[in-house]
Formats: sequence, structure tokens, C-alpha cells
Amino acid sequence: MENAGIDLFEAMSTLSSVRRLRQDPIPDDVLRRILTAATWAPSGGNRQGWRFMVVKDPQTKRRLRDLYLPHWTAYESAHRPTLATLPEPERSRMTRNYDTARHLAERIHEAPVIVVVCVHLPDLAITDAKLDRPSVVGGGSIYPAVQNLLLACRAFGLGATLTTLLCMSEPKVRELLAIPGDWATAAYVPIGYPEGRGHGPLSRKPVEKVTFRDRWDTPLF
Amino acid sequence: MENAGIDLFEAMSTLSSVRRLRQDPIPDDVLRRILTAATWAPSGGNRQGWRFMVVKDPQTKRRLRDLYLPHWTAYESAHRPTLATLPEPERSRMTRNYDTARHLAERIHEAPVIVVVCVHLPDLAITDAKLDRPSVVGGGSIYPAVQNLLLACRAFGLGATLTTLLCMSEPKVRELLAIPGDWATAAYVPIGYPEGRGHGPLSRKPVEKVTFRDRWDTPLF
Repeated sequence: MENAGIDLFEAMSTLSSVRRLRQDPIPDDVLRRILTAATWAPSGGNRQGWRFMVVKDPQTKRRLRDLYLPHWTAYESAHRPTLATLPEPERSRMTRNYDTARHLAERIHEAPVIVVVCVHLPDLAITDAKLDRPSVVGGGSIYPAVQNLLLACRAFGLGATLTTLLCMSEPKVRELLAIPGDWATAAYVPIGYPEGRGHGPLSRKPVEKVTFRDRWDTPLF
Repeated sequence: MENAGIDLFEAMSTLSSVRRLRQDPIPDDVLRRILTAATWAPSGGNRQGWRFMVVKDPQTKRRLRDLYLPHWTAYESAHRPTLATLPEPERSRMTRNYDTARHLAERIHEAPVIVVVCVHLPDLAITDAKLDRPSVVGGGSIYPAVQNLLLACRAFGLGATLTTLLCMSEPKVRELLAIPGDWATAAYVPIGYPEGRGHGPLSRKPVEKVTFRDRWDTPLF
């Protein structure tokens, strides 16, 4: 299988969430390439406590959709009304995002694969576990692999998006996929060829606004 | 500033943790490029709740080292003895990793910059917060940005490594860098030009061992 040559910065700067996917299958050789890219990511102590469950079975995917949709509906009900307060063009952009996110929630089972990314809890050194705030560090050994996966999808012209709503139903997913108790689900990534143009220009805050030098609120640039 | 052209798969497959760094400064134009790459990452609801604190001040870096070193020493004391049980060549490889990690712990302040990656806690939708296991999902909106940062370093010939030990001293870091209470530190990334060869071949489990189809322990490939 040939290399899907793309410049790193080109890939990173055009990697957008693609939520409208065609049902066409993804060749196993391509799956192998994108999952191999995921395994190249760093992890704490290089312990590589990851497993990638490639869900292709139609009934299993439909069951995931049935679990996913109510979570999306609850999220949308809580958050969509806040869009009205946004200025344009932000409001239109976010409204389109909600529309495509609903589209995905209703049809996530139509994606040729959903990759359920699992992480081995005993392998994690969660250095912020004892702080008086929500913990994030456990994700440091798994989301770099997810980002590699997404970038590799980009290279192969595949659309994908990192979702986590199904974590709320993890006990049911665990049963469905026979995931052992010491493994957690960290991401659910539907992947497929885009319906529309797929990837494209991003909407991001300028780097000058999010970068400080030595002390908070001291601009670097 | 010209593009640091590198193929995506070449960058991902040769991105290793580089812990021996030269003190030579990094041009601001390069810092701008690698931090811009970080901002291209996805985040929940595209909220981009990140800030990148570029620590260059020698006294501030030394203070971070003084906080870091005891955590490394404690980690090393707990984990290095377990290396004796490993088979070769794993044991030699891991022993070298511990040696370079100690080198870094003693000299992290000599890196030209330490990027402290902060995440805005109110922006996170932590969908695994109520599960009966450690939470990882909060990291899903920040470690993809860290991975982009590391890949961009690779493109510019910079060495770096994702560290999280300093999260254990976050209250002191918060005071040192004047970080507001609703922002957490997710990663501390020392960056500099490599002392030695820097990046190179990785040591990873084969993709066949970590990929399943539809059910746990059912091989995909």
C-alpha cells in the first residue's frame, strides 16, 4: 500500500471534524495504516496501554447509535439555546456544527467503522488525581494516539471526529464489546469517506491570544 | 519563515521523547509556528480552552526544576527496581530511558523553553466524571493540541517530551506563573534542539496486538 503523502502542517491545519460520512467501506490496508499511526503516539512510560476496537458489525453499530442519540439530544437541549447569544458569523458556524452533530448522532451507525479507543487504567500515572479539581492527566496517555489517528485519516481522505458522549454509557458499551473492567473507553471515533468536501479551513483563535511568556496574561508575541 | 516540510507519516513514525537538550535559544518565529500548530487541534465544542505559557525566564525555569526533581526521584525509586524483571532488550532500553529521564529532571531548567499547557476547566464536558473509575475524558480537549505541538517540534528538528509530574505541584506552579484558579496545568513540555541524534525509530507493540474487531480479543488483522 503506497504512502498517503501529505505535509505535516498541511494535515494539521486542515484537520476538521467531519460528521457527514458515506457508507462506503474502508479497505483493511487503510485501517491498518491509520491504526499503526495511532500506535506511534507517546504514552506515559511508553506503556502503550491502548486497544483499538474497530466496530464494523451493523447490529453493534446500531446499538451504539441507540445509546449515543439520547446523550446528544440532552446535550443539544442544554447547549443549543445558548447559540442565540453569539455574534455572527460565530452563531451561523456553530449552528451548522450542531446540525451536523445531530446528523451524526442519528446516523453514527452508518459510518463504515466506529473505532472505540480503550485505555488500560492500571498503566496510568494520574499525577493530578489528588488535586482539588477535575482530573485530566489520565488522558495524556491516550489522546495523543487519537490525534495521530485523526491526522492519519486526514491523509487518506477519510473524515472522522473525536466523540466522548458514549463514555456516559460505558457500562453498557463494556457489556456490548466485552471490554474488561480495567480498561476504560476514552474516545469513539466514527470514520468514513466524507459526503461533502470533508476537511477544510479551521476556525481558531489566533495564537497571539492564547500564548503567554513566563506569567499569565503576559503576551509572548 | 519557510515551511518546515516533512511528511506526516515520517513525522509521526519518528517522534520520540527527546530528553537531552541543548541550551541554544529557539527563534520566536519557530515558537510561533509550533504553537500555532497546537491551536489547530480539535477540542470539545471547538471551545479551544487552552493557553500555552512559554517559560523562558531562568529563575522561573530553575524553580520548576526544583519542584520537578523530587517528584522524579520518588517515581524513579518506586519504578526503577521493576526494570530488573524485564527481559532484554527491553531492560536495556528502559534503563536508558530512566537515565535520560533523570538527566532531564536534573536539567529541565536548561531547556531554552518549558511550555506549560493549561486547560480551562469550565470548558470541559467530562462525560466520564460520574463513572466508577478514574476520569480521562477531560484530557480529550487538550492532549490532541500537545500532540500537534510535539509533531511540529519534530518538523523543526526540536526535541521535546510530554511530562506531567509537575501537576503534583500545581498549586505552587499556579502561584509561580499566576495561573487563575479555573485553569489547570495539563502538560509541561521542555523543548530544545537535541544534544544527540534526537528523534529516531520507535519501540512500539505491533498494531495486530492492539486492534480488535467488534469484540474484545477478536483480532481485526
